Amino acid sequence: MSRCSCEEDALHRIRPTPEERTYVRTIGSHLIEAVEKTGLARAMMVGSVARDTFIRGDRDLDVFMLFDPSISREELEEKGLALARTVAEAFGASCREKYAEHPYINATIDALDVDLVPCYAVLRATEIKSAVDRTPFHTRYILQHIGDLGDEVLLLKQFTKTGGVYGSDHMTEGFSGYLCELLVIYYGGFRGVLEAAAGWRPGVVIDIEGHGSRAFEEPLVVVDPVDPERNVAAALSLTRMSEFVELARGYLATPSEAFFIPPPSCPFTEDAFRRTIDGRGAKLISLTFATPPYTADTVVPQLRKSAESVRELLERSEFPVNRFDVCMQEERSMLLFELMTDTLPAVRRHLGPPVWSEGNARKFVGKYVDADLFSGPFIEDGRYYVEIPRQYREAALLLRSRSLLDVALGRHVRKSMKEGWEVREGRACWDESFASFLGEFFRHESPLVRVLRHRQE
Amino acid sequence: MSRCSCEEDALHRIRPTPEERTYVRTIGSHLIEAVEKTGLARAMMVGSVARDTFIRGDRDLDVFMLFDPSISREELEEKGLALARTVAEAFGASCREKYAEHPYINATIDALDVDLVPCYAVLRATEIKSAVDRTPFHTRYILQHIGDLGDEVLLLKQFTKTGGVYGSDHMTEGFSGYLCELLVIYYGGFRGVLEAAAGWRPGVVIDIEGHGSRAFEEPLVVVDPVDPERNVAAALSLTRMSEFVELARGYLATPSEAFFIPPPSCPFTEDAFRRTIDGRGAKLISLTFATPPYTADTVVPQLRKSAESVRELLERSEFPVNRFDVCMQEERSMLLFELMTDTLPAVRRHLGPPVWSEGNARKFVGKYVDADLFSGPFIEDGRYYVEIPRQYREAALLLRSRSLLDVALGRHVRKSMKEGWEVREGRACWDESFASFLGEFFRHESPLVRVLRHRQE
Repeated sequence: MSRCSCEEDALHRIRPTPEERTYVRTIGSHLIEAVEKTGLARAMMVGSVARDTFIRGDRDLDVFMLFDPSISREELEEKGLALARTVAEAFGASCREKYAEHPYINATIDALDVDLVPCYAVLRATEIKSAVDRTPFHTRYILQHIGDLGDEVLLLKQFTKTGGVYGSDHMTEGFSGYLCELLVIYYGGFRGVLEAAAGWRPGVVIDIEGHGSRAFEEPLVVVDPVDPERNVAAALSLTRMSEFVELARGYLATPSEAFFIPPPSCPFTEDAFRRTIDGRGAKLISLTFATPPYTADTVVPQLRKSAESVRELLERSEFPVNRFDVCMQEERSMLLFELMTDTLPAVRRHLGPPVWSEGNARKFVGKYVDADLFSGPFIEDGRYYVEIPRQYREAALLLRSRSLLDVALGRHVRKSMKEGWEVREGRACWDESFASFLGEFFRHESPLVRVLRHRQE
Repeated sequence: MSRCSCEEDALHRIRPTPEERTYVRTIGSHLIEAVEKTGLARAMMVGSVARDTFIRGDRDLDVFMLFDPSISREELEEKGLALARTVAEAFGASCREKYAEHPYINATIDALDVDLVPCYAVLRATEIKSAVDRTPFHTRYILQHIGDLGDEVLLLKQFTKTGGVYGSDHMTEGFSGYLCELLVIYYGGFRGVLEAAAGWRPGVVIDIEGHGSRAFEEPLVVVDPVDPERNVAAALSLTRMSEFVELARGYLATPSEAFFIPPPSCPFTEDAFRRTIDGRGAKLISLTFATPPYTADTVVPQLRKSAESVRELLERSEFPVNRFDVCMQEERSMLLFELMTDTLPAVRRHLGPPVWSEGNARKFVGKYVDADLFSGPFIEDGRYYVEIPRQYREAALLLRSRSLLDVALGRHVRKSMKEGWEVREGRACWDESFASFLGEFFRHESPLVRVLRHRQE
């Protein structure tokens, strides 16, 4: 594999040390041994540690405990959690019960963040009973096909992390580790992936095993080699895909270490916030409420959906929205909107029926002829209009009204908002705990642009 | 013809008195005699006086002088005007030269407003050399077909006048007298016209002689019985047609004298103007300049076109326009706009190319990466955007800028505006000489609604 010096330099920084590798794998082996010697389940390491594709310092150890598929779901959960606890406590760790599709145990063992996950030992990935059952198949597939491309995967992971497009969680909507591994295998290396990606458009389909069995809607489709029904890139948004494409082009044009070194985060202060919003002159408005007590992967899509509904309400009410974004924090969540106008005239134009629609026309005129109007009913190009008093002349009043609960909010978000929400405007939107979110909202530049500017400094 | 009492009452008021009729026709005959005894041309009365379809008091007398078609256009104009002058002066009148498609003489003779118009005596209306040559054919056709429907025409004319939809000039865009006559002939009377119109939709075609020889685009088509290529209703706008349809329905539902008696004009005062715009809370902005020295039929369409272009400029610049209208006065003309917002943030969103368009994407990023921006370039759903400083944050500054001369203004309007124009805002838009235009702009109700409200008072 011929690499430029910046790639070699990056590898030098991100490749795990031999000591680190040995240390993590040793602990993994001990955990597997501890599980299997109970005779209750088999065990295996999965994830990037198992595949030797982890970045230095990212030492999350995933140990899966594979139970016989004949036991019931309840039995699996009960036995699985009990076994996980026993093993973790034998290593002197305290346990935290967590929940993805089903429950598992998270523990800190010898300074490693360890997940002990019960699953079914099914024979084929297409026979899985729960999403976690698929993970062992992914690990086996990568181990069989990765060959000497491990370093190439490290480069692609570091490149996507630096570019802010790594992570298939619902906040990022980017590339998962497994997706990076498959792309490197398919295109033969880091450079091969970038050269292909530079020419991607929405609609690219990659089917390594040539077994895809249905059509997919997503902008990038990578058929799972272990399951022809699944798109490994299903979580990737069009925006993240586009950002990866421009990063690939930018890197191929001018390779540089800046693509592998995350820029230092610049803290956003209240003072900078004030100068920013004063300079833009637009109308900022925030909506905060208690974060629903669920994982980010449940809550974030609901925040997005809620914000989209609120945006529609604002625009239907003639408050033009320039941009909006959402942020989930531990305690509070925020929907943030920047409006071009937050105050409107008293008069509102209201569309009526076509004159040709005789019954509706008569009803419309009858309804409004004696009403308290600014003007009308009048006719323009064959349609009736009236000019009526506007219910909400200020965006903040609209967002404080109970009618906000009538738009399509996510289920948990609605429940939380029923307990109350806060609307703030302009400078009052500043909130120390949302500082970095506010900073990103206003900085807002594509990953390539960020790299180019960072390199110039 | 069975008529309701309000129609009989209306006829009683609008039908010319026998004395009036005799008086006008006698003067007409004397003028014809005076023309014909020179041996230079034949002469005939045309228009509503000739057809006996004039409303009491509307005593415009049109005498056409029909010259041999073999003479040249220059000769026609020269001889025609000379003859008209001679005749008018013989009646002791002073002459004013006027110009429609070609020149004619206007004179006040025995308290009548008389037009003496030279034209060609062509054999068929399809052989005309100038639009005025067609008029004698219209008069002959109506005289042959009107029978005893004269009173019915008077009712329809008065009905359309009261409703504000009478007049085929470019300001009104309504029904001409000839169109009223043809509709009455076709539908057999005033009531017949209304009953048909109540069911009209755009696309109605009426072809009395069944000889229409081409497709027409206008919402109402009435093929000229004397010229299969011409739509008598070509000047009728969709809005005026719709207003006539609703008037017809309203009258048939509840016939009333209010449909024949124009409501008293209520004067609009500066005080009422201020209360109105304060109440609406919208942003009024007016643009005035010297009226170009041409007839209303030339200038008004150019004012409309100019106002439409200015509206597009405003909306392209993100100032939403609620309504606009134009007014031509003797000295000054006005384009009037009501905006929902007249001030915008400094930040303006600017759309770039799709990320997939590699060359354009590279150029766009290259152009903006070092530019002075609010944010970006960033990517949303596969497209680039930047947020740049806005050139005009205030609508008034935009309308005062020279860039206004770059939009599609009418030719004469542009020439006049090159000499300067004035932009006023809010209360400063008040101008005594545009008082009734401003009043109509804000009253703005359909003719039926006006009748219904007037009747209630």
